[in-house]
Amino acid sequence: MSNPYNTGLKRNPANYQPLTPLAFLERAASVFPNHVAIIHGELRRSYKDFYKRSRQLASALTTQSIGRGDAVSVMLANTPAMLEANYGVPMCGAVLHSLNTRLDPVVIAFQLDHADTKVLITDREFAEVIEKALSLASVNPLVVDYDDLEFQQSGKLLGDIEYEEFISTGDPAFDWLMPEDEWDAISVNYTSGTTGDPKGVVYHHRGAYLLAQGNAITASIKKHAVYLWTLPMFHCNGWCFPWTISAVVGTHVCLRWVRGKPIWDALADHKVTYLCGAPVVMSIILSTANEDKRDLDQQVEFFTAAAPPPEQILSDMKTAGFNVTHLYGLTETYGPSVVNDWHQEWDELELVTQAALKARQGVRYLSLEDLDVFNSETMKRVLRDGETIGEIMFRGNVVMKGYLKNEKASAEAFAGGWFHSGDLGVVHEDGYIQIKDRSKDIIISGGENISSIEIEDVLYKHPAVATAAVVAMPDDKWGETPCAFVELGEGATASHEDLNSWCRENMASFKVPRKFVFETIPKTSTGKLQKFILRQRAVELAGT
Amino acid sequence: MSNPYNTGLKRNPANYQPLTPLAFLERAASVFPNHVAIIHGELRRSYKDFYKRSRQLASALTTQSIGRGDAVSVMLANTPAMLEANYGVPMCGAVLHSLNTRLDPVVIAFQLDHADTKVLITDREFAEVIEKALSLASVNPLVVDYDDLEFQQSGKLLGDIEYEEFISTGDPAFDWLMPEDEWDAISVNYTSGTTGDPKGVVYHHRGAYLLAQGNAITASIKKHAVYLWTLPMFHCNGWCFPWTISAVVGTHVCLRWVRGKPIWDALADHKVTYLCGAPVVMSIILSTANEDKRDLDQQVEFFTAAAPPPEQILSDMKTAGFNVTHLYGLTETYGPSVVNDWHQEWDELELVTQAALKARQGVRYLSLEDLDVFNSETMKRVLRDGETIGEIMFRGNVVMKGYLKNEKASAEAFAGGWFHSGDLGVVHEDGYIQIKDRSKDIIISGGENISSIEIEDVLYKHPAVATAAVVAMPDDKWGETPCAFVELGEGATASHEDLNSWCRENMASFKVPRKFVFETIPKTSTGKLQKFILRQRAVELAGT
Repeated sequence: MSNPYNTGLKRNPANYQPLTPLAFLERAASVFPNHVAIIHGELRRSYKDFYKRSRQLASALTTQSIGRGDAVSVMLANTPAMLEANYGVPMCGAVLHSLNTRLDPVVIAFQLDHADTKVLITDREFAEVIEKALSLASVNPLVVDYDDLEFQQSGKLLGDIEYEEFISTGDPAFDWLMPEDEWDAISVNYTSGTTGDPKGVVYHHRGAYLLAQGNAITASIKKHAVYLWTLPMFHCNGWCFPWTISAVVGTHVCLRWVRGKPIWDALADHKVTYLCGAPVVMSIILSTANEDKRDLDQQVEFFTAAAPPPEQILSDMKTAGFNVTHLYGLTETYGPSVVNDWHQEWDELELVTQAALKARQGVRYLSLEDLDVFNSETMKRVLRDGETIGEIMFRGNVVMKGYLKNEKASAEAFAGGWFHSGDLGVVHEDGYIQIKDRSKDIIISGGENISSIEIEDVLYKHPAVATAAVVAMPDDKWGETPCAFVELGEGATASHEDLNSWCRENMASFKVPRKFVFETIPKTSTGKLQKFILRQRAVELAGT
Repeated sequence: MSNPYNTGLKRNPANYQPLTPLAFLERAASVFPNHVAIIHGELRRSYKDFYKRSRQLASALTTQSIGRGDAVSVMLANTPAMLEANYGVPMCGAVLHSLNTRLDPVVIAFQLDHADTKVLITDREFAEVIEKALSLASVNPLVVDYDDLEFQQSGKLLGDIEYEEFISTGDPAFDWLMPEDEWDAISVNYTSGTTGDPKGVVYHHRGAYLLAQGNAITASIKKHAVYLWTLPMFHCNGWCFPWTISAVVGTHVCLRWVRGKPIWDALADHKVTYLCGAPVVMSIILSTANEDKRDLDQQVEFFTAAAPPPEQILSDMKTAGFNVTHLYGLTETYGPSVVNDWHQEWDELELVTQAALKARQGVRYLSLEDLDVFNSETMKRVLRDGETIGEIMFRGNVVMKGYLKNEKASAEAFAGGWFHSGDLGVVHEDGYIQIKDRSKDIIISGGENISSIEIEDVLYKHPAVATAAVVAMPDDKWGETPCAFVELGEGATASHEDLNSWCRENMASFKVPRKFVFETIPKTSTGKLQKFILRQRAVELAGT
């Protein structure tokens, strides 16, 4: 018998519309046209103007015959143009491709060719690298220069047209394009990965809508929140926050560079309540010269990812008036889709225990349907014992559409109906997952698995250590041994012997690094330690 | 050329799952198993147990061969069983049908037959009316009695099995059924309408998921919010709040009856931060005897709908520590999907101006894609002049799937790709809509349209008037004239002459009611004035 609740009850335009975060901006501009959407230096831009300019951008792109299936690439700092790109590009049906501004010309050229870039919007600051990249690339996009007033330094305009001039060719009342289907692509973000060419992670409107709302609900982000852009927007579309902030009709405070004084000034002057970033951003905030720090009236929520926040930093952040929440995710999951969802009663525990609890990656966002750790051979969920290591896997609506023009990689990533993160972890008894190591970072010494993170945790507890990264160093006898790269705090001192005995006191002897290297650790623009460089360095250092 | 961003990037279980609010409870129980989900009298029920019992209910229903496309009806007060039904019934694939507990046996029998009820869960308090309804109905459902400990009065058990016994037959680890498609029905709610048989409004999982999140974002509902059930859950699935509260891992405080002292006790004892209801609930809160009122430490958010909150009530609520938000919607839009989204700067205005602004129904929820007022003949949007009356129409994902077994009514409701609300209103310059009259409530006198709401507003401002309702009275000369039904405040006095001169001072003379009737105004269980009864009464009174 047919199901009466499914009979004669079809979708129609009155009861079904594609989900898209673009509609958040339309609503914000319609309901709160004069609310300040963007602060950038002296600039104050209302929602009405933000929406108008985004539509102008969409219209100008349409005039250039850009439409569905075309890529528009951007090489932009955290500026108003970058926010406009997150709306204006998909509003003409195109796909937004955000370039990591720290990349070298070869990788940029690869991405431009792979995405088949039709238009490139580029900030004057990055003219040199883009000029080289364009000379290497096969594509020949229309180049639009963004000449940000907040950028006072040199850097030439190398393109065909300046950004303001370009959008002035567009219609501010442009009837922007809804996606034909919520599964349509909204953006592509390339992951560097550890081997092979970068892969283009494709996001769709549905996932962007859901993660943007997921941020608001997970973090209890209030109406009219003020958000500071310490997280690069080229990173997973700024973890979808460009869309989240429109959903709550908040204010974006732009920031070209992550530096201490401007951050404190923004926090105090604009009453910022939310910001995101890797632990290095917290270090910058805390190590700001005292005379540049400001008194804050408000409680500030800081969302961190990329690495577990060290205990000392957590403690110092608390003292400084910040509440830190630890998030986790990958480019393939629209940025954060896992949260260390804090239990009120944990506030009563000792700080060291709190830090241990907060180091865990946590549980699924409301917008992610499932998350677990699997034995990747049997595809069975591991025991919730906090010990059995497996691969962290995701399933749900905030997992990417797939890798662009790479069906093989997509099929591998989705094998068995789960997204394979490549990160290794455990599940604790309470269901919170914890990364034990990125797949590539396990050190296997004498047949024993050693977690580099475990060693790093011990090193971070040493009072002199500011940053620590441990990788495998080839060893004739043991196969591999741990090699520790260390940056000391300002004015602090510690010798090889000091750290060696510190480790001996705090871990099994086979885990103690055979070598301590005191040098600057290479980091990505988001503060993620670049272990693949350290691994090469460890190979060079082996036997020395 | 094919679009590369749509090629080889198909849906699979890793990146696509049906949206359903049932997953909110699974998450809450998994992450915060011991957090109190439900308070009911002395009862404290954790999320772990709430989830377990919901699965038991689903399992017990499955054992009775209930599954996809079957209706389970409930005649329940705001009790834990009602919350469990909102999860347990759809968890076995069935459709939840909530009966309005104030209905008479004839209407209930109609609904049971129309929904083809397979199981009926009924509270002892409603045994008498249900017994009659069952004797009238053709269906012969399994009847499960809910014997709530908080109900101490008489009322027999008339069914086949008691609720606790029934769910004890279920498996607490039951592997509940996800919807096969997010478009699958989750519930059916009947609207009484003004003519003809009640219509069964079908909700789907997608809409329920989106409106539940929409509530949280629209109202900035925080993690671990405490929510008091003054709104009947049989009303649009409690405006989807049974699902919203799981999304934020909050606490439900149940309440069998809406009475002053228990409300104040709940507010103070459980630190309630959110509650919903018609303006009558605010009247009850405000008119509670002083010795029964309690001091509150917290700011309480009150969401009201069904009628614009009168100025005096708004002012008194503010003084009493409540912030009132005005919502609007229909059964067909999952409850509220329109919000009087408040502008901070309006707080600076005079209270009378604030009340006028707050009386407007407002703007679309984030989860509703479009809302406007149309000339229903031309299907053109009316001018934003605050004067041109048209029909309020909705479009988006939180509009019902359609009317059950009533393709004609569904087609009419969705004509032209918009849901026709039947409510008449205007759009102000700032895009906020305001109801000028329910379609049936316009009074046409001497060819002039008179809004009954406008007259009611004037009457509410008279210090002696507690409740006012104005309907059309047949008139030989003018066609219709306004007739006002009035309830005076406790101890207040006002004569026909007093109100007549009050109206003459405050409105055009053709709008002044020809008759003032001082008697109790019939109300629905949610406090909505039953104008259709008053209209009949006005016919009787005509010429007297």
